[in-house]
Amino acid sequence: MTTQVIVLNGGSSSGKSGIVRCLQAVLPDPWLAFGVDSFVAALPARMQGADGGITFAPDGGVSVGVDFRALDAAWIEGIAAMAHAGARVIVDDVFPGGARSQQRWRKALGDLAVLWVGVRCDIAVAAGREVACGDRVQGMAALQAHVVHEGVGYDLEVDTTHTESLVCAQTIAARVG
Amino acid sequence: MTTQVIVLNGGSSSGKSGIVRCLQAVLPDPWLAFGVDSFVAALPARMQGADGGITFAPDGGVSVGVDFRALDAAWIEGIAAMAHAGARVIVDDVFPGGARSQQRWRKALGDLAVLWVGVRCDIAVAAGREVACGDRVQGMAALQAHVVHEGVGYDLEVDTTHTESLVCAQTIAARVG
Amino acid sequence: MTTQVIVLNGGSSSGKSGIVRCLQAVLPDPWLAFGVDSFVAALPARMQGADGGITFAPDGGVSVGVDFRALDAAWIEGIAAMAHAGARVIVDDVFPGGARSQQRWRKALGDLAVLWVGVRCDIAVAAGREVACGDRVQGMAALQAHVVHEGVGYDLEVDTTHTESLVCAQTIAARVG
Amino acid sequence: MTTQVIVLNGGSSSGKSGIVRCLQAVLPDPWLAFGVDSFVAALPARMQGADGGITFAPDGGVSVGVDFRALDAAWIEGIAAMAHAGARVIVDDVFPGGARSQQRWRKALGDLAVLWVGVRCDIAVAAGREVACGDRVQGMAALQAHVVHEGVGYDLEVDTTHTESLVCAQTIAARVG
Repeated sequence: MTTQVIVLNGGSSSGKSGIVRCLQAVLPDPWLAFGVDSFVAALPARMQGADGGITFAPDGGVSVGVDFRALDAAWIEGIAAMAHAGARVIVDDVFPGGARSQQRWRKALGDLAVLWVGVRCDIAVAAGREVACGDRVQGMAALQAHVVHEGVGYDLEVDTTHTESLVCAQTIAARVG
Repeated sequence: MTTQVIVLNGGSSSGKSGIVRCLQAVLPDPWLAFGVDSFVAALPARMQGADGGITFAPDGGVSVGVDFRALDAAWIEGIAAMAHAGARVIVDDVFPGGARSQQRWRKALGDLAVLWVGVRCDIAVAAGREVACGDRVQGMAALQAHVVHEGVGYDLEVDTTHTESLVCAQTIAARVG
Repeated sequence: MTTQVIVLNGGSSSGKSGIVRCLQAVLPDPWLAFGVDSFVAALPARMQGADGGITFAPDGGVSVGVDFRALDAAWIEGIAAMAHAGARVIVDDVFPGGARSQQRWRKALGDLAVLWVGVRCDIAVAAGREVACGDRVQGMAALQAHVVHEGVGYDLEVDTTHTESLVCAQTIAARVG
Repeated sequence: MTTQVIVLNGGSSSGKSGIVRCLQAVLPDPWLAFGVDSFVAALPARMQGADGGITFAPDGGVSVGVDFRALDAAWIEGIAAMAHAGARVIVDDVFPGGARSQQRWRKALGDLAVLWVGVRCDIAVAAGREVACGDRVQGMAALQAHVVHEGVGYDLEVDTTHTESLVCAQTIAARVG
């Protein structure tokens, strides 16, 4: 069965973006890549830090409002439609609600062939990479590391603590049909 | 009738991106924004400069291959699905094939309420802004300025030659239902 | 006399960066370009929003602390040294203290041949460009537009309200010895 | 003796930038950071890919011309002047000529207290990170990995193959006077 969508879920600074770029490089077909970062970039600038939008607390906590949720739901439908229209798509996301977040994706992706991938990273290492990136809200990695995986079902999991992005990508690519 | 999608079409460096950000700021509802730049960013890096992908000639000419076209078609379907799912969406695109490119969008957008906007700019001014941006392929603005509008039907047109992005956005916003 | 340094001073969103890139394109010799943005990027991330560092108020006000000032003074000495070592250098800055800020540069630049350029822009237009940029603190343009020019002496002034960056750059380049 | 300048030398994708950001975070004083990337960003756009400037070959080879060298020499003088003026400065560079490149820095830095740091990374790992970054010229990491260290003297060396940026930074910080 041909994999149509790869969904990567993991906390902030767990290494999803690097894996996505490596997947696009090692997979023989061209895959589109979208993710939480490109979604946030598509929002009006004023929704950052606003009621209804997305707010980053000093401790790294993230809260999203009703407008954010509505647009996010429509965005997920759009990603599903791209795959239905024949594009192979890699998505990286942060599931704030764990299993509940996965359920939203499952419902939208319907009968598409999806490879579910969990991206893990030791909290201390992820927090260190948060510092190394320079533009991340400190504390987000620690807050999200476990909660995003709660109750989520995966086809495979990778751990970037001691494994390079490219190696993780090769492991994932070996499972792509 | 409530406008569901705003499509801006114009050549490289005609000022689309600035208008999009102003539209997101002045429109009372939150609108998602996608465009040719975010689409290209979603492609595998190796498709830039490759057969099948997108190639920029030294004179500013752009040519796209069969893989690019297929993914682009699926991306358009995805944008339409986001709007059908309730998101209000602004798209900025470059119609390389003029009327033919518009026809692709029309077919995908179906019965959605679309506001078609042409973005014009004098060639010499657009070429100058290409220099001011620093990261643009020189010559692209001149090559695209006219051809992208050939045979395209608009609800309104704006011209950034002597009019600021914000003023163009206000003109467009006044036409949004 | 050969111009060794070009200093552009103007408020936020007055159009300095575009002029700098155009100057680098139109001047026959290669000029290095540094500015307030590259200086801030060289600071530790933690100095943004911190005592001693640089703070952006919600109304667009900017305040800098003692650490910022000390590093800024050393940075200015470094720019002067590059010019003394033979590099031709373009600097774009915001003179928060008007004449006092210019005096700091004058002292550091000593006997170097400097072309002082004021970059003006109508407040309403600059505020609109702030919106079009998408990543600017709103209100900064209006607060800085006049105060940065108070008591500052220029060799020439350009106004980006109705004049493109490239044309401003050509005007400046014509005065470069 | 108070360290005034930290110079990090290592090949492309060896992990210098992440270490620099972590150093700025862990060192108690504010340090300015400059490097080969910020230097290249200060050059006219037209010097990329041009005679006299900097050229990237398809195999990852980098060659620089006479204009690049002259501006680079002046830039080094400027960095030294910033340190002489009291700023503590971290520099990350790629020494294309190994010992010869170090000699240029030694001469400019004179009697400043410098901590020389070599940044190593296994070639295969660095090449993988090149892919994960997405915007790097492939092959550069492998070509530079060894040659940049030839004959260079260090106060300490770090290896990012199995050690995180933050840990490398802490090791370096422990040696800062």
